[in-house]
Amino acid sequence: MIMAPAGAKRNILERLDAGEIVIGDGGFVFALEKRGYVKAGPWTPEAAVEHPEAVRQLHREFLRAGSNVMQTFTFYASDDKLENRGNAQRFTGAQINEAACDLARESEDEVKGIFKRQLDVFVKKNVDFMIAEYFEHVEEAEWAVQVLKTSGKPVCASLCIGPDGDLNGVSPGDCAVRLVKAGANIVGINCHFDPMTCVKTVKMMKEGVERAGLKAHYMVQPLAYHTPDCNCQGFIDLPEFPFGLEPRILTRWDMHKYAREAFNVGIRFIGGCCGFEPYHIRAVAEELATERGYLPAASEKHGNWGAGLEMHTKPWVRARARRDYWEKLKPASGRPKCPSMSTPDSWGVTKGHADLMQHKEATSQEELKPLFEKAKASN
Amino acid sequence: MIMAPAGAKRNILERLDAGEIVIGDGGFVFALEKRGYVKAGPWTPEAAVEHPEAVRQLHREFLRAGSNVMQTFTFYASDDKLENRGNAQRFTGAQINEAACDLARESEDEVKGIFKRQLDVFVKKNVDFMIAEYFEHVEEAEWAVQVLKTSGKPVCASLCIGPDGDLNGVSPGDCAVRLVKAGANIVGINCHFDPMTCVKTVKMMKEGVERAGLKAHYMVQPLAYHTPDCNCQGFIDLPEFPFGLEPRILTRWDMHKYAREAFNVGIRFIGGCCGFEPYHIRAVAEELATERGYLPAASEKHGNWGAGLEMHTKPWVRARARRDYWEKLKPASGRPKCPSMSTPDSWGVTKGHADLMQHKEATSQEELKPLFEKAKASN
Amino acid sequence: MIMAPAGAKRNILERLDAGEIVIGDGGFVFALEKRGYVKAGPWTPEAAVEHPEAVRQLHREFLRAGSNVMQTFTFYASDDKLENRGNAQRFTGAQINEAACDLARESEDEVKGIFKRQLDVFVKKNVDFMIAEYFEHVEEAEWAVQVLKTSGKPVCASLCIGPDGDLNGVSPGDCAVRLVKAGANIVGINCHFDPMTCVKTVKMMKEGVERAGLKAHYMVQPLAYHTPDCNCQGFIDLPEFPFGLEPRILTRWDMHKYAREAFNVGIRFIGGCCGFEPYHIRAVAEELATERGYLPAASEKHGNWGAGLEMHTKPWVRARARRDYWEKLKPASGRPKCPSMSTPDSWGVTKGHADLMQHKEATSQEELKPLFEKAKASN
Amino acid sequence: MIMAPAGAKRNILERLDAGEIVIGDGGFVFALEKRGYVKAGPWTPEAAVEHPEAVRQLHREFLRAGSNVMQTFTFYASDDKLENRGNAQRFTGAQINEAACDLARESEDEVKGIFKRQLDVFVKKNVDFMIAEYFEHVEEAEWAVQVLKTSGKPVCASLCIGPDGDLNGVSPGDCAVRLVKAGANIVGINCHFDPMTCVKTVKMMKEGVERAGLKAHYMVQPLAYHTPDCNCQGFIDLPEFPFGLEPRILTRWDMHKYAREAFNVGIRFIGGCCGFEPYHIRAVAEELATERGYLPAASEKHGNWGAGLEMHTKPWVRARARRDYWEKLKPASGRPKCPSMSTPDSWGVTKGHADLMQHKEATSQEELKPLFEKAKASN
Repeated sequence: MIMAPAGAKRNILERLDAGEIVIGDGGFVFALEKRGYVKAGPWTPEAAVEHPEAVRQLHREFLRAGSNVMQTFTFYASDDKLENRGNAQRFTGAQINEAACDLARESEDEVKGIFKRQLDVFVKKNVDFMIAEYFEHVEEAEWAVQVLKTSGKPVCASLCIGPDGDLNGVSPGDCAVRLVKAGANIVGINCHFDPMTCVKTVKMMKEGVERAGLKAHYMVQPLAYHTPDCNCQGFIDLPEFPFGLEPRILTRWDMHKYAREAFNVGIRFIGGCCGFEPYHIRAVAEELATERGYLPAASEKHGNWGAGLEMHTKPWVRARARRDYWEKLKPASGRPKCPSMSTPDSWGVTKGHADLMQHKEATSQEELKPLFEKAKASN
Repeated sequence: MIMAPAGAKRNILERLDAGEIVIGDGGFVFALEKRGYVKAGPWTPEAAVEHPEAVRQLHREFLRAGSNVMQTFTFYASDDKLENRGNAQRFTGAQINEAACDLARESEDEVKGIFKRQLDVFVKKNVDFMIAEYFEHVEEAEWAVQVLKTSGKPVCASLCIGPDGDLNGVSPGDCAVRLVKAGANIVGINCHFDPMTCVKTVKMMKEGVERAGLKAHYMVQPLAYHTPDCNCQGFIDLPEFPFGLEPRILTRWDMHKYAREAFNVGIRFIGGCCGFEPYHIRAVAEELATERGYLPAASEKHGNWGAGLEMHTKPWVRARARRDYWEKLKPASGRPKCPSMSTPDSWGVTKGHADLMQHKEATSQEELKPLFEKAKASN
Repeated sequence: MIMAPAGAKRNILERLDAGEIVIGDGGFVFALEKRGYVKAGPWTPEAAVEHPEAVRQLHREFLRAGSNVMQTFTFYASDDKLENRGNAQRFTGAQINEAACDLARESEDEVKGIFKRQLDVFVKKNVDFMIAEYFEHVEEAEWAVQVLKTSGKPVCASLCIGPDGDLNGVSPGDCAVRLVKAGANIVGINCHFDPMTCVKTVKMMKEGVERAGLKAHYMVQPLAYHTPDCNCQGFIDLPEFPFGLEPRILTRWDMHKYAREAFNVGIRFIGGCCGFEPYHIRAVAEELATERGYLPAASEKHGNWGAGLEMHTKPWVRARARRDYWEKLKPASGRPKCPSMSTPDSWGVTKGHADLMQHKEATSQEELKPLFEKAKASN
Repeated sequence: MIMAPAGAKRNILERLDAGEIVIGDGGFVFALEKRGYVKAGPWTPEAAVEHPEAVRQLHREFLRAGSNVMQTFTFYASDDKLENRGNAQRFTGAQINEAACDLARESEDEVKGIFKRQLDVFVKKNVDFMIAEYFEHVEEAEWAVQVLKTSGKPVCASLCIGPDGDLNGVSPGDCAVRLVKAGANIVGINCHFDPMTCVKTVKMMKEGVERAGLKAHYMVQPLAYHTPDCNCQGFIDLPEFPFGLEPRILTRWDMHKYAREAFNVGIRFIGGCCGFEPYHIRAVAEELATERGYLPAASEKHGNWGAGLEMHTKPWVRARARRDYWEKLKPASGRPKCPSMSTPDSWGVTKGHADLMQHKEATSQEELKPLFEKAKASN
């Protein structure tokens, strides 16, 4: 899929098999929401149609920052200029859930049927590989892998779970084994948790796969937010989601640690999800520059470990132009009236409960009122 | 200057005189650094030449978010499509300092001479008004105003000081009086401090101007970072500057408070500086939508006070779709090992000291070594 | 042991069997260190001999606060006035270790021999029951229980471990089963972790005992410090130990939550260890006043849930005279330059390592120097 | 007053004139509240009558910790054993207010009359000097000084104000001048703010006195709580007052900094108020041991700068036995869900307002109800 011109370059599996590091991109919806093109809540991806120049600019920035995978924001976002760099198509658990919802949750077969019809379109567009991602229940991911395998393309399967396993309590190791047996070539974790938590979870997946005598490649695409206070359902339950997450944003130096740890654990497809900006991906690429043999284009605008500060007028700012300084920095929040951690919401309801059915329309004011009352009482 | 087509629309003074609110844009260098186009340290603005599409896209996003001033990133960044929206030219204290440096600090007259030659170019391009900004010493700002007045355009003068006054200890009120007497039409504060601190400082400027029986308009373009721990020299002395400021980034709700407070104090030119992203400007525009009579374009992708969450599947997330929730939220940092405040650096050296002369080239390793030693000892 | 005069009152097991709640006291060495009578580091208990009035006063305060167990600070501290209230004798893991050390760790039998000779003295003094406490390895606690059982008195066995189990990785449940099988009547946790962590660990012990079809009573005597950042070796490894723990001290309201949770889990011997002051024990006694049927003497100087504030002159202070207020309060540290959590020390060395042998004399300056170097490098 | 036996030793003024450092004690009501003998809210001092052994023990501990002033907890607390150590009598602003209240605030003369009758009793008991303390309005302190001067004893006058001055806005410097002119020999600050804030305020008082060409000695008796978030009315308005202040308690190392700073500023009567425990006073005495020429008795149980840890079994704990370690420690709160700072209460009402009249009896439930409603709304 990467740097494609078909015959000329190797596909993603050939590259991973050869020991290369593949750097993913960041999450588009969060970045485009901040740029004014996506609505939080429905998170609808119509920006690709309405404002293609904004989507294209973000693709450019991630590529310049070192990504060598371009995940389509939506199918229609693919764009001639970008086409020959290869790209991957995502299929999310949310889509499957929506399909299930349309069908009143009738049956596995029907869900797969709908899903298959979507796939046909993407196959025609000749994407380089398929990613089934953002699943909280491993069996839904298995269905997706089974369908995607029919395309003949390499298939990645990525869950949005933490070390405690999926929402039915299946451990990361067992989840990974099931996905590999279903046919996934690359398995891993995306979204919902911070980088170190995701890397830890992928490590557990890898150990499970190896214990089972199987083989796979591993991917990780975490949040760019620190989430030590999450429960098993991830950052959506944090009170700050989605409009108060700023104090949790990782610095570029946090990203260096993440990239190194992911590499050490044996992960070779290393990217990002919600919260990642181009400079976060650049930090990943810079940390792994020696292993990859090159720096990304955007590093021409970024001194190594703060080296650009060597020209600053104040000597104490020049003294920050060193790795040791930034590695040890414990950055202050500037918010003395705020805590370090929150208590996740989650009103004792778990997935599958009737209260959690997808609504087609915005909740009415009458429906919202008891929610507001309950929320106030629980604060 | 705003929405210009010359005769058709009123200039900035006419608008402010009529009681309109003018919304500025955000700081370009910080935003473009994160997108991979500007180098922190030298902060050189060559992106306008090298990657005009990136600069243009950021202009688009700020305009879409509600800015009705477009401050040129550099002269050459001005772009046909944007030209007829009007724009403002910035002249910074740093430029004046550099000029002074070139001349070995010879004399006020020579500094003004160099400055005048730059001005001539901008006048030809017919910008709508001039902003002299980022001055730590009021007399430098006075010189700038005197030169800019010769253009016949409206002149803004903006200092990067806090409530303690300029680096010679001249109070905000006295600074403002001197700038107005020098001919500034609009006076205010930009950069160096967080929004509430800047608003407080402009309030002191306004009180000074009124006590002196003078009249002016007021502007504010603060950081998008919380900086309660700054000393009088601002955020550059914070240990997190410039690569560890993430935990300090304001949320959109912080911006609502800022916009309201700025309006209440009587400021009518309300914008942003380093750290502002388009969604921050949108929040300013949304807070003042009633007073201005319209919402910005980007609000079509942003429910009022989180209203977009009304469609979320989880009831506790739907319960966040209300103003009360976001106004009271004290967002956690997710960083329990980090403090809330830092101790600013500043090795007992102040502006004008020989150690602070601008270097033309990067500091050599021999020069840096003693700095690193000193920095380690002082930690 | 409680409220003793032999025939007149029931012993501790009879009381626990009858469903009574027994409230322990707090840790003496930490409290007396702050009062100026005990030296931190060696933590030597000579205060009982040198300043018996100070020890006696602290006993009085804990009894007044609601304790109905008086644990001898040392044997010699027992005092005529207090004698007829009954008391318990503690045998600590540290004592056993010291014995082991004296014997150059020769054998289990010899350790038990020394221990037995100490016991004989206490039996003569007719204490009401024996507590073997502060063990990090379950087998040492088993030896202690076996010896203490020969006294014919009720025996408590208390470990200083957390949910991860003892330092050899034996789970809390398995530890508890082994102690009960060795003859302990009451098993539980003391020291090393904060109240909620200790309660959680005792809960795991109880589940283990019940799964094994055994029966026991449960005790808990935690720290009065919040320790969410501890690793398995407890608060000694926190950088704040022992002279910087102040910001972690629990409020009286935290103690209410602890007492309620301990009660709900089924623990009936509820006390405290290092950091507990008399008012902390009083809070435990007040929380459980309904269940116990009476308030402690010291409650005459303490309004229920802040009721004493009803007489304050300021109305906003009077408004704090309510349970709801104190239950929800998230108390600020007043230390914006400090973090919420620390990283525990522990230089990769675990118990049993030669570096950890008890020294008879203070470490020499030559021995300390490399430690200081290492410590600085690891910061 | 110090180490008195009349002729034998010098009085407090002679000692201060000779350049000696006098160390005060800590606040009794807060310490005795935690020990179970005083009720927060009314803060009634009946403990001296009801539990003299508890009061006597606390006196012993402060003396042992290095205090050489013993401030009577109340008159009746004075005790034969302690008599010959000398002592000081306190007259508080609260007493004066109460007197004023009794008289329906009739006149300055009548207030002074009541006050004078109290004084007569103390004079008979031959205390060594008088302290008028805890005044928020300088004129009340002036009245007190005028009355106390009639005793012929040295008089201290201490306000509970911060750098912003008294509640009528009289600056610390002007307050001090007025008190010295009224006859005070020693002026200073006690209670309401943290040590560094109090020292800063006394420094301003000293500068005022010196500017006026007057002479005085200076005293400081601050809180043992960090209060960076207080407004001008001090810690009573903090939401944590008085039952949630634990995270703010100063460490012994904080006290070293305080003692050094107070000494450097020229203060020679250095003590403590609410929150001070004996070990805090010991830290003050240890910091100033060189200047005073001796260590307090309690230092026999306290290694210099943590030296007692040299005997600890774990090498990383032994490595904490050094000044550098404790001086640099930024102690964690262990409370990641709590903030660093609070917002002071103060419902727009200031002293003198009818809502703030002292009540003779506890507020009734009907009176409290609207307060609770208001408090909830303002959270």
